[in-house]
Amino acid sequence: MSKQELVVLGQDADECCPALLTAPLDAGQADVLARVFKALGDPVRLRLLSMIASRAGGEICVCDLTPAFDLSQPTISHHLKLLKQAGLIDSERRGTWVYYRLLPEMTDRLAAILTRPGGQPPAGTAPAHAPVEAAS
Amino acid sequence: MSKQELVVLGQDADECCPALLTAPLDAGQADVLARVFKALGDPVRLRLLSMIASRAGGEICVCDLTPAFDLSQPTISHHLKLLKQAGLIDSERRGTWVYYRLLPEMTDRLAAILTRPGGQPPAGTAPAHAPVEAAS
Repeated sequence: MSKQELVVLGQDADECCPALLTAPLDAGQADVLARVFKALGDPVRLRLLSMIASRAGGEICVCDLTPAFDLSQPTISHHLKLLKQAGLIDSERRGTWVYYRLLPEMTDRLAAILTRPGGQPPAGTAPAHAPVEAAS
Repeated sequence: MSKQELVVLGQDADECCPALLTAPLDAGQADVLARVFKALGDPVRLRLLSMIASRAGGEICVCDLTPAFDLSQPTISHHLKLLKQAGLIDSERRGTWVYYRLLPEMTDRLAAILTRPGGQPPAGTAPAHAPVEAAS
Protein backbone atom coordinates (compact mmCIF):
# COMPACT_ATOMS: atom_id res chain seq x y z
CA MET A 1 0.00 0.00 0.00
CA SER A 2 1.50 3.32 -1.07
CA LYS A 3 1.68 6.59 0.85
CA GLN A 4 -0.90 8.05 -1.49
CA GLU A 5 -3.29 5.21 -0.76
CA LEU A 6 -2.85 5.59 2.97
CA VAL A 7 -3.73 9.27 2.69
CA VAL A 8 -7.08 8.19 1.28
CA LEU A 9 -7.72 6.19 4.44
CA GLY A 10 -6.60 9.11 6.60
CA GLN A 11 -3.21 9.66 8.20
CA ASP A 12 -4.51 11.57 11.18
CA ALA A 13 -7.12 10.38 13.64
CA ASP A 14 -8.78 13.80 13.50
CA GLU A 15 -9.03 13.79 9.73
CA CYS A 16 -9.62 10.12 9.58
CA CYS A 17 -11.24 8.12 6.97
CA PRO A 18 -13.49 8.49 4.01
CA ALA A 19 -17.07 9.02 5.08
CA LEU A 20 -18.52 5.62 4.29
CA LEU A 21 -21.79 6.19 6.13
CA THR A 22 -22.31 9.93 5.68
CA ALA A 23 -21.36 10.67 2.07
CA PRO A 24 -20.94 8.63 -1.10
CA LEU A 25 -17.40 7.27 -1.52
CA ASP A 26 -15.68 8.15 -4.74
CA ALA A 27 -14.22 5.40 -6.90
CA GLY A 28 -10.65 5.91 -5.70
CA GLN A 29 -11.55 5.80 -2.02
CA ALA A 30 -13.68 2.72 -2.63
CA ASP A 31 -10.82 0.90 -4.40
CA VAL A 32 -8.41 1.46 -1.52
CA LEU A 33 -10.89 0.62 1.20
CA ALA A 34 -12.17 -2.47 -0.61
CA ARG A 35 -8.67 -3.92 -0.62
CA VAL A 36 -8.47 -3.71 3.16
CA PHE A 37 -11.91 -5.23 3.67
CA LYS A 38 -11.06 -7.95 1.15
CA ALA A 39 -8.04 -8.85 3.26
CA LEU A 40 -10.44 -9.30 6.19
CA GLY A 41 -12.89 -11.30 4.08
CA ASP A 42 -11.32 -14.68 4.72
CA PRO A 43 -11.75 -16.81 7.86
CA VAL A 44 -8.12 -17.91 8.05
CA ARG A 45 -6.89 -14.33 7.80
CA LEU A 46 -9.39 -13.19 10.43
CA ARG A 47 -8.20 -15.92 12.79
CA LEU A 48 -4.57 -15.00 12.12
CA LEU A 49 -5.32 -11.33 12.75
CA SER A 50 -7.12 -12.11 16.01
CA MET A 51 -4.25 -14.33 17.18
CA ILE A 52 -1.75 -11.58 16.41
CA ALA A 53 -3.83 -8.75 17.89
CA SER A 54 -4.65 -10.56 21.12
CA ARG A 55 -1.20 -11.90 21.83
CA ALA A 56 0.19 -10.89 25.19
CA GLY A 57 3.34 -8.92 24.52
CA GLY A 58 1.98 -7.50 21.29
CA GLU A 59 3.68 -9.86 18.86
CA ILE A 60 3.66 -13.49 17.89
CA CYS A 61 6.13 -15.79 16.18
CA VAL A 62 4.99 -17.37 12.93
CA CYS A 63 6.06 -20.63 14.57
CA ASP A 64 3.17 -20.16 17.03
CA LEU A 65 0.63 -19.31 14.32
CA THR A 66 1.08 -22.22 11.94
CA PRO A 67 0.24 -25.06 14.38
CA ALA A 68 -3.24 -23.59 14.95
CA PHE A 69 -4.23 -24.37 11.35
CA ASP A 70 -4.42 -27.46 9.23
CA LEU A 71 -2.63 -25.59 6.47
CA SER A 72 0.87 -25.57 5.05
CA GLN A 73 3.45 -22.99 6.10
CA PRO A 74 3.45 -21.41 2.59
CA THR A 75 -0.33 -21.02 2.73
CA ILE A 76 -0.16 -19.35 6.15
CA SER A 77 2.64 -17.12 4.89
CA HIS A 78 0.53 -16.11 1.90
CA HIS A 79 -2.37 -15.09 4.15
CA LEU A 80 0.01 -13.15 6.41
CA LYS A 81 1.41 -11.38 3.35
CA LEU A 82 -2.09 -10.24 2.33
CA LEU A 83 -2.77 -8.89 5.84
CA LYS A 84 0.56 -7.06 5.73
CA GLN A 85 -0.12 -5.61 2.27
CA ALA A 86 -3.44 -4.32 3.57
CA GLY A 87 -1.62 -2.42 6.32
CA LEU A 88 -3.22 -4.47 9.09
CA ILE A 89 -0.05 -6.09 10.46
CA ASP A 90 3.70 -5.64 10.31
CA SER A 91 6.49 -8.18 10.64
CA GLU A 92 10.09 -8.40 11.73
CA ARG A 93 12.57 -11.20 11.16
CA ARG A 94 14.72 -12.04 14.18
CA GLY A 95 17.01 -15.00 13.72
CA THR A 96 15.18 -18.00 12.36
CA TRP A 97 11.66 -16.68 12.82
CA VAL A 98 9.41 -13.88 11.66
CA TYR A 99 7.37 -12.07 14.32
CA TYR A 100 4.04 -10.37 13.56
CA ARG A 101 2.24 -7.53 15.30
CA LEU A 102 -0.99 -5.61 14.77
CA LEU A 103 -0.91 -2.15 13.19
CA PRO A 104 -3.75 -0.71 15.26
CA GLU A 105 -3.93 2.48 13.22
CA MET A 106 -5.59 0.55 10.42
CA THR A 107 -8.19 -1.19 12.58
CA ASP A 108 -8.80 2.17 14.29
CA ARG A 109 -9.44 3.73 10.88
CA LEU A 110 -11.82 0.98 9.86
CA ALA A 111 -13.68 1.28 13.16
CA ALA A 112 -14.03 5.04 12.58
CA ILE A 113 -15.21 4.49 9.01
CA LEU A 114 -17.94 2.15 10.27
CA THR A 115 -19.02 4.33 13.18
CA ARG A 116 -22.10 6.47 12.69
CA PRO A 117 -21.64 10.16 13.51
CA GLY A 118 -22.83 10.56 17.10
CA GLY A 119 -23.75 6.90 17.13
CA GLN A 120 -27.17 7.84 15.80
CA PRO A 121 -29.01 6.43 12.82
CA PRO A 122 -29.11 8.69 9.75
CA ALA A 123 -32.05 11.10 9.87
CA GLY A 124 -35.25 9.52 8.67
CA THR A 125 -34.04 5.98 8.97
CA ALA A 126 -36.81 3.66 10.01
CA PRO A 127 -36.09 1.54 13.09
CA ALA A 128 -33.84 -1.13 11.70
CA HIS A 129 -33.70 -4.76 12.63
CA ALA A 130 -31.31 -7.53 11.81
CA PRO A 131 -32.54 -9.72 8.97
CA VAL A 132 -33.17 -13.25 10.04
CA GLU A 133 -34.04 -14.88 6.75
CA ALA A 134 -31.52 -17.36 5.46
CA ALA A 135 -29.41 -16.25 2.55
CA SER A 136 -26.23 -17.70 1.17
CA MET B 1 -27.63 -15.19 7.09
CA SER B 2 -29.43 -17.32 9.67
CA LYS B 3 -30.46 -16.43 13.21
CA GLN B 4 -27.72 -18.67 14.52
CA GLU B 5 -25.12 -16.82 12.48
CA LEU B 6 -26.33 -13.46 13.69
CA VAL B 7 -25.98 -14.64 17.27
CA VAL B 8 -22.30 -15.14 16.58
CA LEU B 9 -22.04 -11.48 15.58
CA GLY B 10 -23.98 -10.44 18.68
CA GLN B 11 -27.68 -9.63 18.92
CA ASP B 12 -27.34 -7.08 21.67
CA ALA B 13 -25.12 -4.03 21.62
CA ASP B 14 -24.03 -4.79 25.18
CA GLU B 15 -22.99 -8.33 24.35
CA CYS B 16 -21.76 -7.38 20.96
CA CYS B 17 -19.37 -9.09 18.73
CA PRO B 18 -16.66 -11.68 18.80
CA ALA B 19 -13.47 -10.30 20.26
CA LEU B 20 -11.40 -9.89 17.12
CA LEU B 21 -8.67 -7.84 18.76
CA THR B 22 -8.63 -9.25 22.30
CA ALA B 23 -8.96 -13.02 21.88
CA PRO B 24 -8.45 -15.51 19.07
CA LEU B 25 -11.60 -16.05 16.99
CA ASP B 26 -12.78 -19.61 16.68
CA ALA B 27 -13.37 -21.07 13.23
CA GLY B 28 -17.15 -20.61 13.34
CA GLN B 29 -16.95 -16.95 14.35
CA ALA B 30 -14.33 -16.35 11.68
CA ASP B 31 -16.50 -17.92 8.95
CA VAL B 32 -19.47 -15.71 9.75
CA LEU B 33 -17.46 -12.54 10.13
CA ALA B 34 -15.43 -13.19 6.98
CA ARG B 35 -18.61 -13.30 4.93
CA VAL B 36 -19.56 -9.80 6.06
CA PHE B 37 -16.09 -8.38 5.41
CA LYS B 38 -16.03 -10.12 2.03
CA ALA B 39 -19.25 -8.31 1.13
CA LEU B 40 -17.43 -5.05 1.91
CA GLY B 41 -14.35 -6.12 -0.04
CA ASP B 42 -15.50 -4.78 -3.38
CA PRO B 43 -15.37 -1.14 -4.52
CA VAL B 44 -18.77 -1.18 -6.22
CA ARG B 45 -20.43 -2.62 -3.12
CA LEU B 46 -18.69 -0.07 -0.89
CA ARG B 47 -19.90 2.76 -3.12
CA LEU B 48 -23.43 1.34 -3.11
CA LEU B 49 -23.36 1.00 0.68
CA SER B 50 -22.12 4.58 1.11
CA MET B 51 -24.81 5.88 -1.26
CA ILE B 52 -27.50 4.01 0.68
CA ALA B 53 -26.17 4.93 4.13
CA SER B 54 -25.74 8.61 3.38
CA ARG B 55 -29.04 9.15 1.62
CA ALA B 56 -31.18 11.87 3.17
CA GLY B 57 -34.39 10.22 4.27
CA GLY B 58 -32.66 6.95 5.03
CA GLU B 59 -33.49 5.06 1.87
CA ILE B 60 -32.75 5.18 -1.82
CA CYS B 61 -34.48 3.83 -4.89
CA VAL B 62 -32.53 1.38 -7.00
CA CYS B 63 -33.39 3.70 -9.87
CA ASP B 64 -31.14 6.33 -8.25
CA LEU B 65 -28.28 3.88 -7.63
CA THR B 66 -27.83 2.39 -11.09
CA PRO B 67 -27.08 5.62 -13.00
CA ALA B 68 -24.02 6.25 -10.79
CA PHE B 69 -22.25 3.21 -12.25
CA ASP B 70 -21.20 2.11 -15.69
CA LEU B 71 -22.68 -1.31 -14.96
CA SER B 72 -25.81 -3.16 -15.97
CA GLN B 73 -28.89 -3.27 -13.77
CA PRO B 74 -28.44 -7.04 -13.15
CA THR B 75 -24.86 -6.46 -12.01
CA ILE B 76 -25.92 -3.74 -9.60
CA SER B 77 -28.73 -5.97 -8.34
CA HIS B 78 -26.24 -8.78 -7.73
CA HIS B 79 -24.01 -6.51 -5.65
CA LEU B 80 -27.03 -5.27 -3.69
CA LYS B 81 -28.06 -8.88 -3.06
CA LEU B 82 -24.64 -9.66 -1.56
CA LEU B 83 -24.85 -6.63 0.74
CA LYS B 84 -28.32 -7.73 1.80
CA GLN B 85 -27.20 -11.32 2.43
CA ALA B 86 -24.43 -9.95 4.63
CA GLY B 87 -27.00 -8.15 6.78
CA LEU B 88 -25.68 -4.72 5.83
CA ILE B 89 -28.79 -3.42 4.04
CA ASP B 90 -32.46 -4.25 3.71
CA SER B 91 -34.86 -3.62 0.84
CA GLU B 92 -38.53 -3.05 0.23
CA ARG B 93 -40.43 -3.16 -3.05
CA ARG B 94 -42.97 -0.39 -3.51
CA GLY B 95 -44.68 -0.33 -6.87
CA THR B 96 -42.19 -0.49 -9.70
CA TRP B 97 -39.07 0.08 -7.66
CA VAL B 98 -37.06 -1.46 -4.86
CA TYR B 99 -35.85 0.85 -2.09
CA TYR B 100 -32.72 0.13 -0.01
CA ARG B 101 -31.73 1.24 3.46
CA LEU B 102 -28.78 0.66 5.77
CA LEU B 103 -29.05 -1.83 8.64
CA PRO B 104 -26.90 0.14 11.06
CA GLU B 105 -26.82 -2.68 13.61
CA MET B 106 -24.37 -4.53 11.38
CA THR B 107 -22.02 -1.61 10.78
CA ASP B 108 -22.24 -0.86 14.52
CA ARG B 109 -21.18 -4.45 15.26
CA LEU B 110 -18.27 -4.29 12.84
CA ALA B 111 -17.15 -0.97 14.33
CA ALA B 112 -17.26 -2.53 17.81
CA ILE B 113 -15.33 -5.59 16.61
CA LEU B 114 -12.60 -3.34 15.23
CA THR B 115 -12.42 -1.03 18.26
CA ARG B 116 -9.65 -1.64 20.77
CA PRO B 117 -10.81 -1.97 24.36
CA GLY B 118 -10.42 1.47 25.88
CA GLY B 119 -8.98 2.69 22.62
CA GLN B 120 -5.56 1.65 23.87
CA PRO B 121 -2.99 -0.51 22.12
CA PRO B 122 -2.66 -4.07 23.46
CA ALA B 123 -0.22 -4.27 26.37
CA GLY B 124 3.36 -4.46 25.22
CA THR B 125 2.69 -3.33 21.69
CA ALA B 126 5.52 -1.28 20.32
CA PRO B 127 4.51 2.13 18.95
CA ALA B 128 3.01 1.25 15.63
CA HIS B 129 3.25 3.15 12.40
CA ALA B 130 1.49 2.77 9.09
CA PRO B 131 3.57 0.93 6.51
CA VAL B 132 4.43 3.08 3.56
CA GLU B 133 6.21 0.64 1.31
CA ALA B 134 4.34 -0.38 -1.80
CA ALA B 135 3.03 -3.89 -1.90
CA SER B 136 0.52 -5.47 -4.23
